[in-house]
Parts: sequence; C-alpha cells; structure tokens
Amino acid sequence: MASAEPPVHRKARHYRWDGVAVVPYKEDAQALFKSITRQVLFADPHQGSELRYFEVAPGGFSSLERHEHTHNVLILRGFGHCLVGREVREVATHDLIAVPPMTWHQFRATGEEPLGFLCMVNAARDKPQLPTLEELAEFEQSPRITDFLKGVR
Amino acid sequence: MASAEPPVHRKARHYRWDGVAVVPYKEDAQALFKSITRQVLFADPHQGSELRYFEVAPGGFSSLERHEHTHNVLILRGFGHCLVGREVREVATHDLIAVPPMTWHQFRATGEEPLGFLCMVNAARDKPQLPTLEELAEFEQSPRITDFLKGVR
Repeated sequence: MASAEPPVHRKARHYRWDGVAVVPYKEDAQALFKSITRQVLFADPHQGSELRYFEVAPGGFSSLERHEHTHNVLILRGFGHCLVGREVREVATHDLIAVPPMTWHQFRATGEEPLGFLCMVNAARDKPQLPTLEELAEFEQSPRITDFLKGVR
Repeated sequence: MASAEPPVHRKARHYRWDGVAVVPYKEDAQALFKSITRQVLFADPHQGSELRYFEVAPGGFSSLERHEHTHNVLILRGFGHCLVGREVREVATHDLIAVPPMTWHQFRATGEEPLGFLCMVNAARDKPQLPTLEELAEFEQSPRITDFLKGVR
C-alpha cells in the first residue's frame, strides 16, 4: 500500500491539480452524457471513500443513472440543475447534494460557465444502472423532468 | 440507518449550510488550538469516510497532532500555511493536502481572511495524539518550524 501514498501537497490551478490527470468521464459506451471530465483528487488506500472532481461544460450533463452506492456532492464552481429521484433542483456553488441508494440522478450545467463538483463515493461500489426505455417514458410523464432532460432550465 | 439519511439538498450561504451546525473544533481540553470551527457536511452511514469543513480565523490554528488515520484536505477558501511531517508549506484555495498516517500536522490561517478547508476522514478512526514536551523541543531545532509554530509566515 505504501506505493499508493499520495503526494502531501498538490497545487491547484484553475480547477486542475498538479499530478492529477483529466480523464474521460466514464468508459461505458452505453451511457448518454455530454461535455464532462473527471479528475480523481483522493483515492487514499487508507480511507473508505474517494474524492473526485467532475466538470461539466455549459449545456453538458452527466449520465442519468442509479446504483446502490451513494454520492456526496459539493458544488465547487458554477451553477446548474440536478435531478435526484423525481425532484429537479437548482444548485449553486458550495451547495451540498446527497444521492441516496438506488435513486436516479443527473447533473446539468445550465448556466453560462462550467459546473464543477466534488463527489465523494465509496472506493468499493456497484456498477451504475441506466434507465430502460420504459423508465425513461415514466420520467416523461412529468413536464418538469421532461424539461430538465431536454436541457430547458 | 434510514433515519440517518441526510437531506438531498442543502444550500450554501457564505460557508455555512442549511441544517449544518457550526460546532466547537474539538472537545479535547488538552489540545492547543485557536479560532477554529467545525461543520460536518457528510456523515453518510453508507460511506466509509466523512466530510467536514473547518474554518480558521486569521491568526488561528488547528491543534498540532498525529494519528493512524489519514486526512484528505481541500482548501475551500483563503490562504495559509501547514506543517505536515517536518515540512512547512504555503497553501491556497483548492490546493490538496494529504496527511499520511502518524504524521504531525497543523493548519494556520496566515492571511488576512479566514482559511477554510474540507477534510475527508474515515468514519472509524483513532484518537489524535498530542506532542510531548520532548517532541515539541525537537520541532524547535528547526528555525522554519519554530517560525511556523510562532505564527511567523
């Protein structure tokens, strides 16, 4: 485990960090997402959770998904909307969002600057599930959620 | 565990959050610290780690301590200095600091505004150890650390 020890200090430079790679959001080719990057800030083998930074360009969004593991989110920059369960919420810098187990969620950058957020997650976690066509059709029964999914603020 | 489920969305208002109490930094009457508060942002029973926000007023400092558990820190606001091991480092907004196991550390707000930082920590963790007089004397062999401990930038 000693080889995985992170450096003690990593400087930040406009939402990038020394020694932290900016990587694709995810590898799942089935998931629908747009204009989003991922940086792993802490994956400390001594801790149960990891901390990642995601950045969504204006108009972009994370995938609509659910899973058994939870997300603990702090908005680090910008403004946007998120869907958690069947609720659409406006989120701004430093707001906290907790995504409970098996709850559909998506983040969208609906402002004019990027939406950047920290996301704490268990190191050991299950694979996200994507909605079926039937589940998507169910969301579309709600005009508020339909607007959200179309990117209408 | 369901009763401990956090609210989905908590708004931020200038480094305070809806429903999050601002509490004393710590209860240990032996520890030397100054002008620092604590807010627990996430203590999700589904996750291995918690996320806390500490804020140190100008001139204030956290206790000088070490423990087996690690700290994963992201500076949320302001500027300061930290001691990690025998290194004094200047830290600024969004910098990352990883405190390894059993490593002496302290944070000081050496700028003109508060130093605020997020600290991720295992939910199950050991109690911090404070330095003995002999250990303090050893730090004072280093002029850089002596200046740091006196609050000299």
